[in-house]
Amino acid sequence: MATDDRGESLAEVGEFTVIERLVAGRRQPDAVTLGPGDDAAVLRSSDGQTVVSTDMLVAGRHFRLDWSTPHDVGRKSIAQNAADIEAMGARATGFVVAFGAPADTPAAQALALADGMWHEAAALGAGIIGGDLVSAPLWVISVTALGDLDGRHPVRRSGARPGDTVAVIGELGRSAAGYALWDNWVDGFDELRRRHLVPEPPYGQGRAAADAGATAMTDVSDGLVADLAHIADGSGVGIGLRTEALSADRDALAAAAAAVGADPMAWILGGGEDHALVATFPGAPPTGWTPIGRVLDGPPRVLVDDAAWQGNPGWQSFD
Amino acid sequence: MATDDRGESLAEVGEFTVIERLVAGRRQPDAVTLGPGDDAAVLRSSDGQTVVSTDMLVAGRHFRLDWSTPHDVGRKSIAQNAADIEAMGARATGFVVAFGAPADTPAAQALALADGMWHEAAALGAGIIGGDLVSAPLWVISVTALGDLDGRHPVRRSGARPGDTVAVIGELGRSAAGYALWDNWVDGFDELRRRHLVPEPPYGQGRAAADAGATAMTDVSDGLVADLAHIADGSGVGIGLRTEALSADRDALAAAAAAVGADPMAWILGGGEDHALVATFPGAPPTGWTPIGRVLDGPPRVLVDDAAWQGNPGWQSFD
Repeated sequence: MATDDRGESLAEVGEFTVIERLVAGRRQPDAVTLGPGDDAAVLRSSDGQTVVSTDMLVAGRHFRLDWSTPHDVGRKSIAQNAADIEAMGARATGFVVAFGAPADTPAAQALALADGMWHEAAALGAGIIGGDLVSAPLWVISVTALGDLDGRHPVRRSGARPGDTVAVIGELGRSAAGYALWDNWVDGFDELRRRHLVPEPPYGQGRAAADAGATAMTDVSDGLVADLAHIADGSGVGIGLRTEALSADRDALAAAAAAVGADPMAWILGGGEDHALVATFPGAPPTGWTPIGRVLDGPPRVLVDDAAWQGNPGWQSFD
Repeated sequence: MATDDRGESLAEVGEFTVIERLVAGRRQPDAVTLGPGDDAAVLRSSDGQTVVSTDMLVAGRHFRLDWSTPHDVGRKSIAQNAADIEAMGARATGFVVAFGAPADTPAAQALALADGMWHEAAALGAGIIGGDLVSAPLWVISVTALGDLDGRHPVRRSGARPGDTVAVIGELGRSAAGYALWDNWVDGFDELRRRHLVPEPPYGQGRAAADAGATAMTDVSDGLVADLAHIADGSGVGIGLRTEALSADRDALAAAAAAVGADPMAWILGGGEDHALVATFPGAPPTGWTPIGRVLDGPPRVLVDDAAWQGNPGWQSFD
């Protein structure tokens, strides 16, 4: 295999040496009883329960290597899994990662991917505790996130009750805006373009919501209305949103929306991948959360300003 | 997308309906506090520790859909991950699974894959507790296994001491034999050909080894000599094997080896993917384990009948 100016390939360096480089010098959190290098890792939980979620990211489908650096892809893959742990009211403690890539992939790119993963995990106080490295015809990244409830009850999608306040924390519509900017070759709006590549979930707020008595919660991965529909279905309730409560997001997106001829509210209500948190509360939401609506008596549905939502029905894997 | 006689595709059925079908009617073990259907699952451990390991399987690389049924692939993907949990002296309790496949994949194949996974998980008393289903240009399956040590110390690769007995349980060379039979279009030897598609790890024997005081253990995934080299390196010891102790495996493989013109001992020492367990014991190995050698003073190396092994150095991801 030819060496090029991108440096040595995975095949040239070899699986075991690449893994040594990926693992060297990383600092594991205290909860990790046994880190990478054996048949399995061992992770301690504070209350005997482990929260677990998994996501697969496929090149060309969930990320593009002509838009994102490997470091960006690493951060995104951890962030979106960590958001699922947050959405249960837990904190992420460890991640295991499987990475498939062509044999001629520069080893330096694998290391940059791992650096991005560690960057994001460290922000959570978590570690990459194990993994697998295999040959595949394109980049495929599979992350499993493990989390600790610290004695809390998990906040499910099924507990919303009529009269609860619906509230959100984290910004909405940024990833969809960034995608539209990238896709339309519109320059500028660097922060929005960046947010499409690397989401910024509101780490720690899932626990805050659980402590404030949240009855249901999810992260906004498919789209705000689509994800609230999961809560509506799971809880057997209606949910009514007020777009006036989302004016801060609308204002922040107005200029970018004008630049690509889009409706910012379509991004806010229909765009996913921001991994904001949305939850329902019988009482007041915690500080920093924005009330955006109310839980209604059934049937399960999401109303936007008292009407059925006609926009993007949300991400579907096989569309 | 055209419908063909293979039935409805994943795209036609739709992600959420496929997931409903995959999850319907499955019975989760008691350790699963919260199963599939929310942002994350919750799994209870008996001692506050969770063992975790992950493997990715890529079509054409780790399985072939012209050799294996989807049910076979499901069983294999769970079995090889469960073997990693066994190799720590633990028992598998739950698995999360990410599955990437083309949009035109028959939904019935995804269901058969899940049935195979559940078949294997149920044999362990474990469940498939969560997952992800995404679009990918080829089949990619990523499994993360979670296990319970039940208060045991994990058996690592680093504890072997000179004088320990090296012992194995589970059959060796079967997967390599089966591969050679498939690859050479040799009919017959159905059991061997089947064992290449679906390994049969010796479930429960990892715990038996831990209880018998095993000082080091691993599963045979890359090849017996290659995997023992990991113990030798991890423990800073030499390992000496006696091929006469492997005569039962050699006899079982003799006819197939003759049919393809191979050396059965090359399969036994160099073939991986059988997921037998090999461990070192200061005292007698448990019932059913076969002593095959002894731990020697350093330097780290594996000797076969007192000589360096000249055969297959073991599976490498990017060869």
